[in-house]
Amino acid sequence: MTAYQALTERFQRLARLDHLAAIAGWDMQTMMPSGGSDARGEALAELSVMHHEILVHASTAELIAQAQQEPLDSDQQANLREIARHYADAAILPTELVEAKALAGSRCEQAWRQQRIDNDWQGFQRNLVPVVDLSRQEAQLRAQALGSTPYDALLNLYEPGMTSQRLDTLFGELISWLPDLLQQVIAKQPAATALQTARIYPISQQKALAESVMQLLDFDFTHGRLDVSAHPFCGGVSTDVRITTRYDTSEFLSALMGVIHETGHARYEQNLPKQWPGQPIALARSTAIHESQSLFLEMQLGRSKAFLQRLHPLICQHLTAAADLTLDDLVQQVQHVSPGLIRVDADEVSYPAHVVLRYEIERSLINGEVEVADIPALWDEKMQRYLGLSTAGDYRNGCMQDIHWTDGSFGYFPTYTLGAMYAAQLFNSLAQQLPSVEEAITLGDLDPIFSWLNNAIWRQGSRLSVDTLVQQATGETLNPKWFKQHLTRRYLGS
Amino acid sequence: MTAYQALTERFQRLARLDHLAAIAGWDMQTMMPSGGSDARGEALAELSVMHHEILVHASTAELIAQAQQEPLDSDQQANLREIARHYADAAILPTELVEAKALAGSRCEQAWRQQRIDNDWQGFQRNLVPVVDLSRQEAQLRAQALGSTPYDALLNLYEPGMTSQRLDTLFGELISWLPDLLQQVIAKQPAATALQTARIYPISQQKALAESVMQLLDFDFTHGRLDVSAHPFCGGVSTDVRITTRYDTSEFLSALMGVIHETGHARYEQNLPKQWPGQPIALARSTAIHESQSLFLEMQLGRSKAFLQRLHPLICQHLTAAADLTLDDLVQQVQHVSPGLIRVDADEVSYPAHVVLRYEIERSLINGEVEVADIPALWDEKMQRYLGLSTAGDYRNGCMQDIHWTDGSFGYFPTYTLGAMYAAQLFNSLAQQLPSVEEAITLGDLDPIFSWLNNAIWRQGSRLSVDTLVQQATGETLNPKWFKQHLTRRYLGS
Repeated sequence: MTAYQALTERFQRLARLDHLAAIAGWDMQTMMPSGGSDARGEALAELSVMHHEILVHASTAELIAQAQQEPLDSDQQANLREIARHYADAAILPTELVEAKALAGSRCEQAWRQQRIDNDWQGFQRNLVPVVDLSRQEAQLRAQALGSTPYDALLNLYEPGMTSQRLDTLFGELISWLPDLLQQVIAKQPAATALQTARIYPISQQKALAESVMQLLDFDFTHGRLDVSAHPFCGGVSTDVRITTRYDTSEFLSALMGVIHETGHARYEQNLPKQWPGQPIALARSTAIHESQSLFLEMQLGRSKAFLQRLHPLICQHLTAAADLTLDDLVQQVQHVSPGLIRVDADEVSYPAHVVLRYEIERSLINGEVEVADIPALWDEKMQRYLGLSTAGDYRNGCMQDIHWTDGSFGYFPTYTLGAMYAAQLFNSLAQQLPSVEEAITLGDLDPIFSWLNNAIWRQGSRLSVDTLVQQATGETLNPKWFKQHLTRRYLGS
Repeated sequence: MTAYQALTERFQRLARLDHLAAIAGWDMQTMMPSGGSDARGEALAELSVMHHEILVHASTAELIAQAQQEPLDSDQQANLREIARHYADAAILPTELVEAKALAGSRCEQAWRQQRIDNDWQGFQRNLVPVVDLSRQEAQLRAQALGSTPYDALLNLYEPGMTSQRLDTLFGELISWLPDLLQQVIAKQPAATALQTARIYPISQQKALAESVMQLLDFDFTHGRLDVSAHPFCGGVSTDVRITTRYDTSEFLSALMGVIHETGHARYEQNLPKQWPGQPIALARSTAIHESQSLFLEMQLGRSKAFLQRLHPLICQHLTAAADLTLDDLVQQVQHVSPGLIRVDADEVSYPAHVVLRYEIERSLINGEVEVADIPALWDEKMQRYLGLSTAGDYRNGCMQDIHWTDGSFGYFPTYTLGAMYAAQLFNSLAQQLPSVEEAITLGDLDPIFSWLNNAIWRQGSRLSVDTLVQQATGETLNPKWFKQHLTRRYLGS
């Protein structure tokens, strides 16, 4: 057996452990009764330890070095590159640091659930300081190995190849025109309308609607399912993708658009390449590219007038209480812009401001330029500047609203807006190559779109770098002008 | 760290892997879409290999030998005894035999699903022969280590301490009076009645009924749940017990009695001792004792007139189509006796005949006294003798009806009837100690029963041997007269 073969066997074993972790994790969020959580947590932690032991085993580095001398074809080389990256990401941290960070993160997150309700910044701050300290240590170690800044080393875990230098340019440009665009949109759009009267949308009807929309979007129900969880997510494994939503009987659009979003993640997973089972080359390319697929379906496709024309009869048919909904009302609701304090409730235009704000703060925090105690003032100042809203004293709806920092997931936030930008660029390329795309959408003929995405993104797995992948698909690397063009066209009609 | 402590850590790790296997296995039967099965099967096989590697690791035997020299309290000694038993059961077989048996078993079972439909004995026989050969090899190896007959060595995997010598006496006595009792019951009971007209019992109503009965039986919904699967089972882990049923909209009693049966398994699991998490001493005592708990709830309690008085209003309340069901009709339905070809459909009186038949055949098969080709003739002869029914040429409803032999689970069948005998003996002891038990059941006050079971069986885990456990609970080891008394009283009223 060659060293390369030995590595692929090891990674297949790891993928099988990942499979079990994904299903047991999904079950925890959707099915598990409350009393099962302690034992489940311990079982998952044990699995994670075993995963880590196999991955960073002394022989792995040796096998990688040997395999790099073996004759490999280009796919094998790409796979080896990904294997080496996964190994290095895992092996660089001393076990004690991993454990200390997991402990501090879990303590901070647990307490945060109540502290957020209590608007208790002082209490939260006490738990967040050690999380930031340990994340800085992690960033330092990773930065030394990569020769990057500390923050860039964390960013790289989610978006390989991305740098804060590049983000500063991308996001700096974005935030230079976004507040102004937002004001123009608000001034131009009609006042909030319709659907505001109290109506009841039974969960069974919403679920049937969601599944019919998933069918329209070609979700493969023989390799996946839809369930309910408190926080919607796309989980499971690529052969069995589990998406979730949460229903509100007084309002149906959040769940419906959420399902379209998760279906975007799911179709990427369901269509990843099958010829390298269990190998890193067969995994999704990056967090931002994953988000680009969910936002392609939710924002580019799902909130477009053309798609809403197709969606409208399905809504009227499934939801008794929405039988009289007009297409105009639906479009107005779905495209309504209204800046608010909460990121997860934000519309497509305000959303990037939330992300830029968090990016700027977490980058300075990890690089040691600001401290945890500085966060509330920075948050308030940026919210005022970008969205014209104040969060002074309102920690709950300010810097305590998100879960990401509680367990030290610094470097994740930027991928939301990178995903939005990639999605706009991909849709623009598709529209240029398929001028009839809008008409096809109106008719519900989405095959050309999906086969384009499959070819450009899904079936590529992790063969290519992010930049090469995007370059091949659209003729250029990430160009934020397509996102600006998209927002301007959709919301200002110009 | 002492050797004993090292062993407990190792077994806690194994229990965590068992946890993941149990949940992923449950998911496979209840939730998983069809396309997920290959990858799931591989993930579970990988986990099982890792489990085996840890369990039979060279150091385990050494640690056991050391721990046997350490000062241990009586619970620790009992735990060490169970640890040594689990280790020996796993370590005795060469890996090649385990793999060959798993392969032959899986091939035989896969093909059997269609062969049974086709009544294809020749095809089935071809696949069963290697399964029996490998099971004989396994039995030989185990028998050498235990100093027992080959069949007894397999029986021991399910029922530690049981021998075929003892079974021959127990089952020989049983089958000497059972056919006669059966004829008397059939002659005495009224003809089949009521409920025969076509009615529809919606699944949602049956589910609500099932959950209200589980509540009555004190099932802990914070540590378990009820779902649907093709073959009902009790799975999950003791902190999160997953039971299943299957609903038939034209008939509700099968699902309902099935839920009561699985709730018996579940309550045992939910009430196993908590003070030794992950240790073998905290596991259920044996397969027959487990079955005694399900049959205690289903047969001793669930099909008694006293309990049916309590169940009757719940049925009428939940099932619109059973609103006019009388208590007399219910009792008659639930206690109706009708010998048939299929074990899983058998009533309480016929059931043991099915088991004795299988026991006699599999014992001779494993001990090399008969061959696979002899099975159909033996089956037909015994069916004629015990139940007065012929299966000549009808393999599908004869020796091909069960899944157990397809993957080589020889030694399992006796535990069904041992469980029924233990259940009768336990109920008899309870009734002697609590003369008011029948009245309490009628009133739905089941606490005294459950606290008796908890004390006698559940909280004992695997501390004691089966014989000591039963002796402590009832004042004697297994005595089949209580089962005979139970059947005679219930079905002949004497």
